[in-house]
Amino acid sequence: MEVELKQLNADLQFLSQSLPDPSHHALLRKIQLRVEDLGKLAAAAPVHRSKVEDMSAEVVDSNPYSRLMALQRMGIVENYERIRDFSVAIVGIGGVGSVAAEMLTRCGIGRLLLYDYDKVELANMNRLFFRPDQVGLTKTDAAVQTLSDINPDVVLESYTLNITTVTGFETFMSSLKKKSFRPNKEGSGVDLVLSCVDNYEARMAVNQACNELSQTWMESGVSEDAVSGHIQLLIPGETACFACAPPLVVASGVDERTLKREGVCAASLPTTMGVVAGLLVQNTLKLLLGFGQVSPYLGYNSLKDFFPTMQMRPNPQCSNVACLKRQEEYMLAKPARDAAAKAKMEAEVLSIEEVPLHDDNEWNISVVNDVELDGPDTRSSDVLPEGLTHELPSADEFHKAISDAPVADNDDLEDLRRQLEAINSA
Amino acid sequence: MEVELKQLNADLQFLSQSLPDPSHHALLRKIQLRVEDLGKLAAAAPVHRSKVEDMSAEVVDSNPYSRLMALQRMGIVENYERIRDFSVAIVGIGGVGSVAAEMLTRCGIGRLLLYDYDKVELANMNRLFFRPDQVGLTKTDAAVQTLSDINPDVVLESYTLNITTVTGFETFMSSLKKKSFRPNKEGSGVDLVLSCVDNYEARMAVNQACNELSQTWMESGVSEDAVSGHIQLLIPGETACFACAPPLVVASGVDERTLKREGVCAASLPTTMGVVAGLLVQNTLKLLLGFGQVSPYLGYNSLKDFFPTMQMRPNPQCSNVACLKRQEEYMLAKPARDAAAKAKMEAEVLSIEEVPLHDDNEWNISVVNDVELDGPDTRSSDVLPEGLTHELPSADEFHKAISDAPVADNDDLEDLRRQLEAINSA
Repeated sequence: MEVELKQLNADLQFLSQSLPDPSHHALLRKIQLRVEDLGKLAAAAPVHRSKVEDMSAEVVDSNPYSRLMALQRMGIVENYERIRDFSVAIVGIGGVGSVAAEMLTRCGIGRLLLYDYDKVELANMNRLFFRPDQVGLTKTDAAVQTLSDINPDVVLESYTLNITTVTGFETFMSSLKKKSFRPNKEGSGVDLVLSCVDNYEARMAVNQACNELSQTWMESGVSEDAVSGHIQLLIPGETACFACAPPLVVASGVDERTLKREGVCAASLPTTMGVVAGLLVQNTLKLLLGFGQVSPYLGYNSLKDFFPTMQMRPNPQCSNVACLKRQEEYMLAKPARDAAAKAKMEAEVLSIEEVPLHDDNEWNISVVNDVELDGPDTRSSDVLPEGLTHELPSADEFHKAISDAPVADNDDLEDLRRQLEAINSA
Repeated sequence: MEVELKQLNADLQFLSQSLPDPSHHALLRKIQLRVEDLGKLAAAAPVHRSKVEDMSAEVVDSNPYSRLMALQRMGIVENYERIRDFSVAIVGIGGVGSVAAEMLTRCGIGRLLLYDYDKVELANMNRLFFRPDQVGLTKTDAAVQTLSDINPDVVLESYTLNITTVTGFETFMSSLKKKSFRPNKEGSGVDLVLSCVDNYEARMAVNQACNELSQTWMESGVSEDAVSGHIQLLIPGETACFACAPPLVVASGVDERTLKREGVCAASLPTTMGVVAGLLVQNTLKLLLGFGQVSPYLGYNSLKDFFPTMQMRPNPQCSNVACLKRQEEYMLAKPARDAAAKAKMEAEVLSIEEVPLHDDNEWNISVVNDVELDGPDTRSSDVLPEGLTHELPSADEFHKAISDAPVADNDDLEDLRRQLEAINSA
């Protein structure tokens, strides 16, 4: 539209110069101002969010991170801002991958690497994320467009390629190795790879790359009938890899493309894919930010709302050579792992021992400050909200009843001993 | 922009009429054509999806419903297109409600009623759906903008109001009763109400409305620490209502707004809210389209990936008068319900009895067509994919071995009887 406005302005300028009557000049000037306004209107929309230097916990409507930084206050995450250090690669930007990318973007992840070779179609509109006006764009381009508008703080890298081709796989490998984002990072250049693809060939390619790079990854999938799915954590050498217990189609070496029939497509639902993406990114956040329990495998059967879990050890007869190598390394590192675990446990015990409350305080009983208790304590069980009453008298009242009863003054130890002896001799 | 273009055109027309020199007219005509082109350019973007008359199962990239209609082919849903008959009301268009609305829109729901009084803020950007360029719009307006672009087939009604105010509640009630979408529908004008609000006062208002209208609804919620949530199905009279076993804050009558402190906000995550929205809409689809098991209650504890379920009967001492009335109706309708259940069971038995395979066929054994078996059967257990072999010989081979053995020709029954007698007398 910029070019068209420029041409229009030039014509108006030319007309203005050729008009002899000054009365026309005023009207023309008005027209030129109108065109100027139109240009501004065209340039104004849409509004963009500006970048944010530091994640703030300040509770104001204009802070896009206030509800995330609140996770620290709530005691869930120790240091939320660490999320900016992490790189996550997402392979397959379909019904699960695109939503996972959006969730990580809104969480303020440091860097996202997106891989897909496909284009957006109207047939994808029954799942979240892509919009009808993006039909025809590559999924990677459309995703970068949407994600950069949502959160300009995230570093986005997109790779429009098929990782199951030779050149595609090579680019995939080198992009995972690249460490420009965090040069001092150990291992590969990314912290986690999320597989969100819809076929076994691509899963085997991700498995191969991650086994070679000793790269932790998570696998996800949704069934062809759209009503179940799963996520799985794979740590080369430590857990089963995708080839350790392969699906029958993979084991038999049949080309899965020959199984697809013309005019038949798999069903899909935004619900199942949204849930799987949510579980996948939740597991990602737990792994990266270190909170809760990271699930090794979590299934979702939506017909019965059943969520099976399991754990798979690596197969010592796995057909993947790189997997066997990682298994060997993991075995060799066992003494070092044990020693580290022991040292960690000892350090924890020591940190407790370092601050003894009392030398012979076997039960770690600590003294509560009297002043705090004396103050107006609204959380006391005696102060009930309006409308509620105690069914039984409170403990204090029992105590009072007891202390009110006449009790013999037996302070003197000698006196007590004498009474005891009298009872015994009776 | 339309208004501005009109004004510009009027000015140009006026100028054209006042110019004496015909040489200027040619230039002005050129300018007018340029403005016309600008108008077209402004109107062209963005591309919109056109409405679709019928949901087709045709597998083409341009069909937005192909993956949903495939649910019928896969045997999950009997008649997916029925979804166009249903109206769903969503109260609260926040982190859960907006995503639930998007999922139902992409599923092609008939009609959506949206209720919220709040505006979009940058602080909402850590959850899915709203975009930074919508900041300042009401959540209902922003939602209608996005949803109508995604699927113009859905009838959208938005209500920018607070249902906890007297006038807000009245409008809420009358909008639920309105039957213009499906005049012959029994009960209220909607099939389901989804509560996606973030406070108890609003939940109690939804509860009151649904108890009064005998309206089935689903409740949803996410914890203040952002890592757990739940969904719950409420059928007035049949299940517990929200007041049957109220949370302490509600029971005690404390104003929950007094519990909130300045400068402190609840944490939230796009993952937890996306999962809760997914579970909520999945339960909605199961209820409306009649597949799978509808969950009466489903919790989501993300730290342990634990999903508790339970069922709650109504409280005969519930404080809600409308609930007690619904409970009474439900009790009174028991004989009719039992009769209907019995009739249904008998009809099912009859439909089996109607087509007896054979009069004395006690085990319902049916004869399989030979022709089908003789054809090339790729699913036979004998035809293994390349690379796999049977550990044991197949049943057919055993059979062959037996039939190959020399067997005496014992067709004659008299002969057999004589042999048997000889054995017995031996």
